[in-house]
Amino acid sequence: MSALLPSPVRIIGTGLIGGSLGIALSAAGVEVQVEDISPGTTALAIELGVGAMPTTDDPDPALVVVAAPPDVAAAIIDRSLRTWPDALVTDVSSVKETVLEGVRVLARPEDLPRYIGSHPMAGREISGVIAARGDLFMGRPLVVVPHPTTRAGAVSQLKGLATEIGAVPVVMDAAAHDTAVAHVSHVPQVMASLVAGSLLGPTEDALALSGQGLRDTTRIADSDPRLWVEILGANAAAVTEVLEGMRERLDEVVEALESLRGSPDPALGSRRALADLIADGNRGVRRIPGKHGGGTDSFVTLTVLVPDRPGELGRLLTEMGEIGVNLEDLHLEHNLGKRVGLAHISIDATREELLTRSLDERGWTVAER
Amino acid sequence: MSALLPSPVRIIGTGLIGGSLGIALSAAGVEVQVEDISPGTTALAIELGVGAMPTTDDPDPALVVVAAPPDVAAAIIDRSLRTWPDALVTDVSSVKETVLEGVRVLARPEDLPRYIGSHPMAGREISGVIAARGDLFMGRPLVVVPHPTTRAGAVSQLKGLATEIGAVPVVMDAAAHDTAVAHVSHVPQVMASLVAGSLLGPTEDALALSGQGLRDTTRIADSDPRLWVEILGANAAAVTEVLEGMRERLDEVVEALESLRGSPDPALGSRRALADLIADGNRGVRRIPGKHGGGTDSFVTLTVLVPDRPGELGRLLTEMGEIGVNLEDLHLEHNLGKRVGLAHISIDATREELLTRSLDERGWTVAER
Repeated sequence: MSALLPSPVRIIGTGLIGGSLGIALSAAGVEVQVEDISPGTTALAIELGVGAMPTTDDPDPALVVVAAPPDVAAAIIDRSLRTWPDALVTDVSSVKETVLEGVRVLARPEDLPRYIGSHPMAGREISGVIAARGDLFMGRPLVVVPHPTTRAGAVSQLKGLATEIGAVPVVMDAAAHDTAVAHVSHVPQVMASLVAGSLLGPTEDALALSGQGLRDTTRIADSDPRLWVEILGANAAAVTEVLEGMRERLDEVVEALESLRGSPDPALGSRRALADLIADGNRGVRRIPGKHGGGTDSFVTLTVLVPDRPGELGRLLTEMGEIGVNLEDLHLEHNLGKRVGLAHISIDATREELLTRSLDERGWTVAER
Repeated sequence: MSALLPSPVRIIGTGLIGGSLGIALSAAGVEVQVEDISPGTTALAIELGVGAMPTTDDPDPALVVVAAPPDVAAAIIDRSLRTWPDALVTDVSSVKETVLEGVRVLARPEDLPRYIGSHPMAGREISGVIAARGDLFMGRPLVVVPHPTTRAGAVSQLKGLATEIGAVPVVMDAAAHDTAVAHVSHVPQVMASLVAGSLLGPTEDALALSGQGLRDTTRIADSDPRLWVEILGANAAAVTEVLEGMRERLDEVVEALESLRGSPDPALGSRRALADLIADGNRGVRRIPGKHGGGTDSFVTLTVLVPDRPGELGRLLTEMGEIGVNLEDLHLEHNLGKRVGLAHISIDATREELLTRSLDERGWTVAER
């Protein structure tokens, strides 16, 4: 076990996150103490390998992880700071400012330096301790959220713990964190739910026309209402700011569409407003980091027609090298009986324009998107 | 070849849809004539197996498929009706009312019965003839759109053609079609683009927190602006109606959030408004038909804890049978070293509540969502 890992670690609240953390830390050799408000859940957690039942002989925890619901997190953080006067205390809530505010209100000022926020950005479609997995955090960001008086060494300790469980540590203050998750998680949830909710009106025949696009856009709409009322309520300020911007954009789109409705003279710029909506979406998608863990690289796939003659694919890859664009991934699509195939080439998004233009100049046929 | 299939079939416009149709029909033994405004595309299409170059000795087509962009479709439909006075003429445009209106304005009334709209709801992330595949329509809906004076037999002919290429025919009038695609395709596109566009503001650090939820919600935002300006402009009426409802809902959500922002006395019903947003989304998602082609069944996955003792999984399945719920699919998740596993059970969505309750009563542990 890494000498940098705190031990024992006490986990309060063994749901999906607390449970998975316990399994991962136990596997790393850490002594994990398990506490949950429900004795049944505690027993199940222990059976699933999250940790052990704390006894009076146990040493005090070096780190306490409060993995209880966000509305009770601040109170439990304060209780933990008081109960174990040497422990570092963290929480895993998905919204940081309200928890920090709550801790500031409840805790003794001298205890405050021992609190530091965390947010492991990991999950799965099911929750509860029975869904817990030691590999839940693999390659996922784990945000470490110090506040101005967080004691020295706390950030490194949590970064070390994050790395040990396979996560990618990211350090941010509470305000930056809450704005970030509003953008990448909370607002997308609202929008997916809005789209899914609009499917209650149409007939079954209409819904028979559904495709993968609709399924993907609404997948996250299948979420727990109680959990999301808490999250959205706790992050209301940041979420509202993003939604208000979105509402303005939606107004422009509706206005442009009204103008185009069978009008011989649509308002100047109506088509432009719609084109910008889609084009901005194109650019936004390219800012999302690729799934290839680590870094914020964004990849796109170009599709090139490759004549089915010996050496053609090799020539394509050689020319890519000459152009100076790295091949991240390649998938070949053969069309049965055809004399051509398609090479689906994955490259860094920032090189897309250069490669498309260069291949076109060299006579290759690149598929449109 | 089925005696019901029209032949020859002339395809005007060999992009992804026209090209794929040609490949599929050629494979079914139909004589396909290829026409495209670009000689280069025509040559490529012929090389890819879409069909043959029409000659003056060829018989007139029995069916003309206008697969050109929607803004020129009506004119090409009219030209085809006049050029081949016995042919049935259809198009593949994704919006039907504007095309029908255009045809009504241009065509001679006596020609109108030979026009019937189609819309194969199939696609892929790349377009153009080089992306064409004979299996593009497999299991996908193909909407057949007669108008009040469409001649007898035309609907059956197109349904037969749809079936031959592996598609699932659905008959709808133009208005119903346009409303349906507004709901399942056009509005989701707008919303995905709005969310993706909102990612232009945040920092790279913020975007580093992105997860699969964001990727799924914004996947379709990577679409062609020119194509979507045409589609949205052509379906402006139906799309506006859905977007206006969505805007109202968004207003309620923003209002509820403003009320919850650090207020000791949030407006009565604010939490309720948010919970309803998510809950309606849950219900909406369940209305989307399952991917298992055919029918409009919607499936959900329940996850049940299964002790790793011999016979336990068998007992679960037996009890499911006793409860009277069919097992559509099963995936087992083993947790290394644990004495339990998870059974991910796929069932008909309408049976979810019954099964969850019954399994719970019988002592099984069902994961929360």
